[in-house]
Amino acid sequence: MRIAVDAMGGDKAPEIVVEGAVLAAREYPIDVLLVGTQTTVEELLQNYDLGKIKIQVINASQYVLMGEPAQDVVRKKKDSSMHVCARLIKTGQADAMVTAGNTAAALAISRSILGKLKGVSRPSLAMVIPNSIDATVLLDVGANAGNCKSQHLLEFALMGSIYSQKILKKDNPRIGLLSVGEEKTKGTSVTLGAFPLLESASINFIGNIEGNDIVNGTADVVVCDGFVGNAILKFAEGASRMFFDVIRAEFKKSLKAQLGILLAKNALKAFTRKLDYEQYGGAPILGINGACIIGHGKSSANAVKSAIRVASEFVSFNVNVSIEKSLKETREQNLSIELLEDEED
Amino acid sequence: MRIAVDAMGGDKAPEIVVEGAVLAAREYPIDVLLVGTQTTVEELLQNYDLGKIKIQVINASQYVLMGEPAQDVVRKKKDSSMHVCARLIKTGQADAMVTAGNTAAALAISRSILGKLKGVSRPSLAMVIPNSIDATVLLDVGANAGNCKSQHLLEFALMGSIYSQKILKKDNPRIGLLSVGEEKTKGTSVTLGAFPLLESASINFIGNIEGNDIVNGTADVVVCDGFVGNAILKFAEGASRMFFDVIRAEFKKSLKAQLGILLAKNALKAFTRKLDYEQYGGAPILGINGACIIGHGKSSANAVKSAIRVASEFVSFNVNVSIEKSLKETREQNLSIELLEDEED
Repeated sequence: MRIAVDAMGGDKAPEIVVEGAVLAAREYPIDVLLVGTQTTVEELLQNYDLGKIKIQVINASQYVLMGEPAQDVVRKKKDSSMHVCARLIKTGQADAMVTAGNTAAALAISRSILGKLKGVSRPSLAMVIPNSIDATVLLDVGANAGNCKSQHLLEFALMGSIYSQKILKKDNPRIGLLSVGEEKTKGTSVTLGAFPLLESASINFIGNIEGNDIVNGTADVVVCDGFVGNAILKFAEGASRMFFDVIRAEFKKSLKAQLGILLAKNALKAFTRKLDYEQYGGAPILGINGACIIGHGKSSANAVKSAIRVASEFVSFNVNVSIEKSLKETREQNLSIELLEDEED
Repeated sequence: MRIAVDAMGGDKAPEIVVEGAVLAAREYPIDVLLVGTQTTVEELLQNYDLGKIKIQVINASQYVLMGEPAQDVVRKKKDSSMHVCARLIKTGQADAMVTAGNTAAALAISRSILGKLKGVSRPSLAMVIPNSIDATVLLDVGANAGNCKSQHLLEFALMGSIYSQKILKKDNPRIGLLSVGEEKTKGTSVTLGAFPLLESASINFIGNIEGNDIVNGTADVVVCDGFVGNAILKFAEGASRMFFDVIRAEFKKSLKAQLGILLAKNALKAFTRKLDYEQYGGAPILGINGACIIGHGKSSANAVKSAIRVASEFVSFNVNVSIEKSLKETREQNLSIELLEDEED
């Protein structure tokens, strides 16, 4: 199993990415292909004991910046480390790729180089979000900026169901359709149209759910269009940062409170571990002809390691084969579900 | 100033609502009209010293349950306490109303009895959300289940701007359009269409913002369609509940941690006070011909009191006059912005 890792992607790249890649190569039975500025990456690797682990450095003469518009990157930076990672998959030299870089660029590059799976109208970015019991897959969180059709939501549901089964080991994942009320008459024209499609598909559809159900363990997979999913994901990031900023500021004012925090240290650690999304290894792009896991820009070395593990599982457990099969069977059962031409193609 | 208070609305009604009404009548120069089952409400009032305060009980023979479908309520429960509150405004016997009951029913009843302000295509439910600095108005959060048009978002922006000025005392509120990227080319067809409308309006439009900006103090008002706003609001509620459930469970396991919490008690209180949305007094319906503030079903007596204060400010500061004026001026400046016929009417 060979995983191409974009050494240049992420706020703390390449240092943290190289560290994460070393950790992964030590722990899992994989070959890591570290793609980036060869001299820099090789220099960083000298800090580690590479004894029995399999890491190879592959040069890329360019790399993608965090804020760069995806369309520019696709056209103008054809030798970026992201492009090289995707081409390694395309040519069979790698099985999967991991990047903690520019999400929009990673989506555009992997779509353009790897293409879509058979039967997929639109690939989707999924995110695993910790809930009060374990974790919920939310999709789409931004591969589709908007204007999704009902049938896209059906495809997201089928793909999310498989990801939940294969990677999160849920037997019969409960699929919820994000709406503004549980009644099947509540929602937009797109969700109203998606409801019967999800109902008739061979998935464990539990009906409409609401925003709070994303985190209370009611559903294993929550389906929504990319605009809503992206807004919720960004809100969650902002809210948790704001939350800790405010609590930190209040605790700074009191010595007694600081002593209290010291006493509660282990419990706080257990708490943050439980809600740590990094353990779930980043956001997979579902529906492309390859495996690409996108880590958060702020990924730690452990997050990079988790993403590499998930990328290898994505391949081992044949996620893409199952997605194609599921889409094919669903269309055979309901001939009115066509493959949509996508204006983005 | 006479405020009609729905004594029967809310999870802890009528006890908590009556308590909140008494607190408000003691603190503010208002008359409270407590609307509900007369005998019950009068009995509850006997627990309080009503010395100099002005509270009058008005009987309503019915009341709305929390889960009841709004359409049924509007048609079949015409003597519900919510109906009576709205009719008191309609007939000039009250200036504003407050309810912590069924939100959908309150929206439907106030729309049907009070009607819309001149120039408003669709009323909107706004929510004041604490951010790291003070608070942001998010709208729409669910008056419009979906299928908003660009021009509805413009109306929400104008109404939210006025609410932020009049009630939250922001001089020149910064209005952000919720999208999936800062670039003006990012978004759905509806937000893309709204962008130039907001740009040309006489408001302080700061462009597209993202989900995290709702809580980081970047914007004073965030505009989105009711589907997205509702999903984010419910997510926020669910996430904060989940957060505290998990932290409580972890702390229960350790005596040391519990001692720590005791020491940090005051800092924790300051923290929760800072992020307490109850201080902002619930969600106003903007764009109806009257003043209606909806409290959370779980409202405490203090939350009810805050909602009554905001209702009285809504009237004192002539929010509705300003909304009509702003919509009129905006249409005079841009004649292509018509009043939309609403399929919901």
